[in-house]
Amino acid sequence: MSAAIKPSKIENALPNSRRIYLDGQQPGVRVAFREIDQNPTRNFDGSLAENPPVRVYDTSGPYGDHSIHCDVREGLAGLRREWIVGRGDVEEYEGRDLQPIDDGYLTFDAANQAREKEKGRLEDFPALCRTPLRAKKGSCVTQMHYAKQGIITPEMEFIAIRENLGRFLECADSSALSKAATSRRTPNSEAPRDSLLHQHKGQSFGAAIPEFVTAEFVRDEVARGRAIIPANINHPESEPMIIGRNFLVKINANIGNSAVLSSIDDEVEKMRWSIKCGSDTVMDLSTGKNIHATREWIIRNSPVPIGTVPIYQALEKVGGKAEELTWEIFRDTLVEQAEQGVDYFTIHAGVRLPYIPMTAKRTTGIVSRGGSIMAKWCLAHHEESFLYTRFRDICEIMAAYDVSFSLGDGLRPGSIADANDEAQFAELETLGELTKIAWEYDCQVMIEGPGHVPMHLIKENMDKQLETCHEAPFYTLGPLTTDIAPGYDHITSAIGAAMIGWYGTAMLCYVTPKEHLGLPNKKDVKDGVIAYKIAAHAADLAKGHPGAQYRDNALSKSRFEFRWEDQFNLSLDPEVAREYHDETLPQEGAKLAHFCSMCGPHFCSMKITQDVREYAAQKEIDEQAALGVGMKEKAEEFVAAGSELYQVSKT
Amino acid sequence: MSAAIKPSKIENALPNSRRIYLDGQQPGVRVAFREIDQNPTRNFDGSLAENPPVRVYDTSGPYGDHSIHCDVREGLAGLRREWIVGRGDVEEYEGRDLQPIDDGYLTFDAANQAREKEKGRLEDFPALCRTPLRAKKGSCVTQMHYAKQGIITPEMEFIAIRENLGRFLECADSSALSKAATSRRTPNSEAPRDSLLHQHKGQSFGAAIPEFVTAEFVRDEVARGRAIIPANINHPESEPMIIGRNFLVKINANIGNSAVLSSIDDEVEKMRWSIKCGSDTVMDLSTGKNIHATREWIIRNSPVPIGTVPIYQALEKVGGKAEELTWEIFRDTLVEQAEQGVDYFTIHAGVRLPYIPMTAKRTTGIVSRGGSIMAKWCLAHHEESFLYTRFRDICEIMAAYDVSFSLGDGLRPGSIADANDEAQFAELETLGELTKIAWEYDCQVMIEGPGHVPMHLIKENMDKQLETCHEAPFYTLGPLTTDIAPGYDHITSAIGAAMIGWYGTAMLCYVTPKEHLGLPNKKDVKDGVIAYKIAAHAADLAKGHPGAQYRDNALSKSRFEFRWEDQFNLSLDPEVAREYHDETLPQEGAKLAHFCSMCGPHFCSMKITQDVREYAAQKEIDEQAALGVGMKEKAEEFVAAGSELYQVSKT
Repeated sequence: MSAAIKPSKIENALPNSRRIYLDGQQPGVRVAFREIDQNPTRNFDGSLAENPPVRVYDTSGPYGDHSIHCDVREGLAGLRREWIVGRGDVEEYEGRDLQPIDDGYLTFDAANQAREKEKGRLEDFPALCRTPLRAKKGSCVTQMHYAKQGIITPEMEFIAIRENLGRFLECADSSALSKAATSRRTPNSEAPRDSLLHQHKGQSFGAAIPEFVTAEFVRDEVARGRAIIPANINHPESEPMIIGRNFLVKINANIGNSAVLSSIDDEVEKMRWSIKCGSDTVMDLSTGKNIHATREWIIRNSPVPIGTVPIYQALEKVGGKAEELTWEIFRDTLVEQAEQGVDYFTIHAGVRLPYIPMTAKRTTGIVSRGGSIMAKWCLAHHEESFLYTRFRDICEIMAAYDVSFSLGDGLRPGSIADANDEAQFAELETLGELTKIAWEYDCQVMIEGPGHVPMHLIKENMDKQLETCHEAPFYTLGPLTTDIAPGYDHITSAIGAAMIGWYGTAMLCYVTPKEHLGLPNKKDVKDGVIAYKIAAHAADLAKGHPGAQYRDNALSKSRFEFRWEDQFNLSLDPEVAREYHDETLPQEGAKLAHFCSMCGPHFCSMKITQDVREYAAQKEIDEQAALGVGMKEKAEEFVAAGSELYQVSKT
Repeated sequence: MSAAIKPSKIENALPNSRRIYLDGQQPGVRVAFREIDQNPTRNFDGSLAENPPVRVYDTSGPYGDHSIHCDVREGLAGLRREWIVGRGDVEEYEGRDLQPIDDGYLTFDAANQAREKEKGRLEDFPALCRTPLRAKKGSCVTQMHYAKQGIITPEMEFIAIRENLGRFLECADSSALSKAATSRRTPNSEAPRDSLLHQHKGQSFGAAIPEFVTAEFVRDEVARGRAIIPANINHPESEPMIIGRNFLVKINANIGNSAVLSSIDDEVEKMRWSIKCGSDTVMDLSTGKNIHATREWIIRNSPVPIGTVPIYQALEKVGGKAEELTWEIFRDTLVEQAEQGVDYFTIHAGVRLPYIPMTAKRTTGIVSRGGSIMAKWCLAHHEESFLYTRFRDICEIMAAYDVSFSLGDGLRPGSIADANDEAQFAELETLGELTKIAWEYDCQVMIEGPGHVPMHLIKENMDKQLETCHEAPFYTLGPLTTDIAPGYDHITSAIGAAMIGWYGTAMLCYVTPKEHLGLPNKKDVKDGVIAYKIAAHAADLAKGHPGAQYRDNALSKSRFEFRWEDQFNLSLDPEVAREYHDETLPQEGAKLAHFCSMCGPHFCSMKITQDVREYAAQKEIDEQAALGVGMKEKAEEFVAAGSELYQVSKT
């Protein structure tokens, strides 16, 4: 097999951005942020006022650091390896033997022959045969377990720093964390930021969002089961992140080859592309051949947690015949994937036999792949689902590697008509019951949610989930708020995602424009991720996450001051913002222009408002004195008073 | 000047669609719908079950009827002319003389020379010199006036039929309207539609949405001021439509040339393009030269109401210097545009002098163009805005032509930071006061709203507007729910638009991906319109508009039954849906395939669910008998009972 996996084609640099790190207390805790530099504001008197760099959450991992050379064939460094081994509760072991069926072949010869035909598009990851880790007998290695013991892991401290978005604890609390952070203030941060720090009071519907996230707070949330840290001990390359209602809303991007299209190369590129755009986790939903090999490449190169739906691979192993699935095959697949380092598994254990008849009158039956596979199995065997009956066995595997549960919603509605029906909520009850069981094993759990739901029925989903599943984090697909716009379901669903994120959903699974129609290409992945970054951020603003509004404020200030470059650079997609601007006004000079292309040089509201400020700035009379006099006088004096009113803020 | 305005380049046909008409009682009331034909469902026994055509609201006017020849140089037929003249309260008169300054020139010679240079891109509309109509002295010709007199105009009856979306009144009520409609059932509608008629109960926050819209209901809503029918007597080409909280949510698309780019030709094409995609009204926001000529072309060819912001043209007439604006110039511009047939005017009469200081501390000051022009004027003159002081004079003009007010929100927030602030709500109070005054003159009024608002502050906007403005319809721009995604503001704002539409906003003004960055091209217009059709429809679903869910149900049924062609045709954008599907599976056969490109032939959840249904369909034992026995038996019997469960619905 030739070396076919090419070095990255993705340009990681985002314009005018620098990678910075904030160190924590524990060894190796070094949290990456992206800082976007800004141009100064030009005041009317010609003087310049500095604008501080804007620090943003960064999911791009080592790829976002120009000083790190990343080779896709070597994989990323094992950031967490020392922490994991250092805890003394894991052991290396030989691991499961790779089988040809893992990649969908009956023999290794068949696999090799098939791959030869692919002309080098496929190869095994060079380091595939490294030794996996698992919990020592009698040990539990989940973050929830440590949290319950009162242990603040390096992962938790990492997350605390990360969640604060580079903000500093200004209050009297002199915890080590805040001091560490404060000591790393950049020079520009000396400038007063008050106007940028202004933020609306949020409405969080009973969430417990702290003003400042401490490592202890992270620990406590994980111990309570209100948040999870997907962090398989065999995926040391991942940077710790958290999914919980009291933290920033996260998003997931699905990638994966299918029997119809795409290669390993494409999938690794899509993963990197997703995280460059801001995806917090990535699910590999590959089907067809070469699932194992694809996944290995993805995990070894991923700085974000990877999720899978193991039943997909199990089904491939039995030739696509759901009725031939067995617990043994499924169990073996779980171990296979846990050894590779998958951070969370979608397990459709709530699709119980008695619920299947509830779907008979639906407009769109069972639309979850996992759900329909298990429904088919249950009917064929006249038995309760083995995912349900063997749930405790599954917990033991999850606990040994710290794979988090993503309890799948196999009966989620696939149409507006089927939203919030009996089948959906019956399954949710079971997911709540299973959550309690998983917690007995200190397994981390999140709950998957719909689907297709009209706006007015969305909140019921969130409220029921919180109550039924004991505040375990909710992880929803959309929901899509109408069925009538295939080709635009990133939008139909971004509406629902923003709302359910506001109501309390911890992670939003993206939907691309190709949903229901085809396999997403790179542009679709980006469109999906950006739509969901918008939804997640809109939710953060509405919930009132401290610091969330800072970037909005900075971008709006740059817009108002005609700092076009800064407006592009502060946006979620600087390339597109610039491209759209340049389509109308391509000249470089236009980006310095005090007008925009919509209205031309003589007719821009921002320009007019600035003219008003300028006009007013020439006068020196105190505005306050103008108050309380008659309209005519008041107006005159108001104009004169403008210097107070319309001076460009120095902050 | 050569004839440069080219015949249409737009293909109006939407796939598998027919234009149909429903007649009303009054002469000339003939309401267009689009009916989308569907393929039959193939049952498991091989038999076919018909699927009824789906009737949808159609904004495309005569362009959507293949039997009508439309020539852009002739304009559309005057559908409403007979109604208007027939009321006996209007008179033809000579009208205002066209002046070179109307198109931004000092002399006609200068205008001609400038246009020569444009190499035929510009010309006057051939029929420009027709005689305008106005109310006879002592008459009022507004739809509100008629409504208050208890008169059901043909416009109102037209709207009642249109708003029912082709549904039939099934209840005992045997009104002429319902009989007229019922008599026009298509053959296919004989098939039972029950499952498609299923609809969730909505949440309308106190709106009064009737089960069936009657002409009397339309009249009553207009009389109360809760809805408007923008219908200038000089725009007889327009098809009646209504904007109100108790009707379907409408959307507006902005077009317009600017000093920087675009020609008349482009703007007429954009208007036609907007209405093909589903825009309910179009605002012509042209600035720069040739405003008058552009508008004439647009109005004469538009079957939807046209709105403008007259202050833009007035400003052009004074060379872009806000301080040189006068009441006389503005008044003359209103008459000029009213004679042309503009259906609603945005008037920023709420930007009062005392409110301007309230914007001084804002992050983004005054971002409305109209608002900033008036602010500049007020400060320069030390006077209250003439739009406010002369408001009763304006009402008299509006009443004489039935131009509706769109009371502009000149102080709307231009950033998340400025949302719901003192300036914004102070202006809203004034708009409420002006609404009452306009109603004294029987003028129709809607109220413009923000802007940029985080999700949790959106409802306050709606609630305050309803209370302050006495339930006059709300017409909002977005709102954008975050500032950080220039290039994607159709999405940031579709989220806010869907929500505020749900809460009660009657019309949503679209935002394109180019917002803040550049002038939208044809693709941007389409992207904006589709995003807003999604928002409006999602709002209709959530409010529980009778009939709204029918299209969702039909599309989801076609999706579940692998009727790919029907899925494309029922969607908001059939071309894009098909294109996305074909990108992955271009073969024609794939559109008959019982799998989708996402998962391939062996791994589709829909396929699996259908397999489950088929499997179950072979058994014949009643499911009910299976209930109440032990799990194992129950499962066995359940499988057997499947015939009841999994037979494809015959409806």
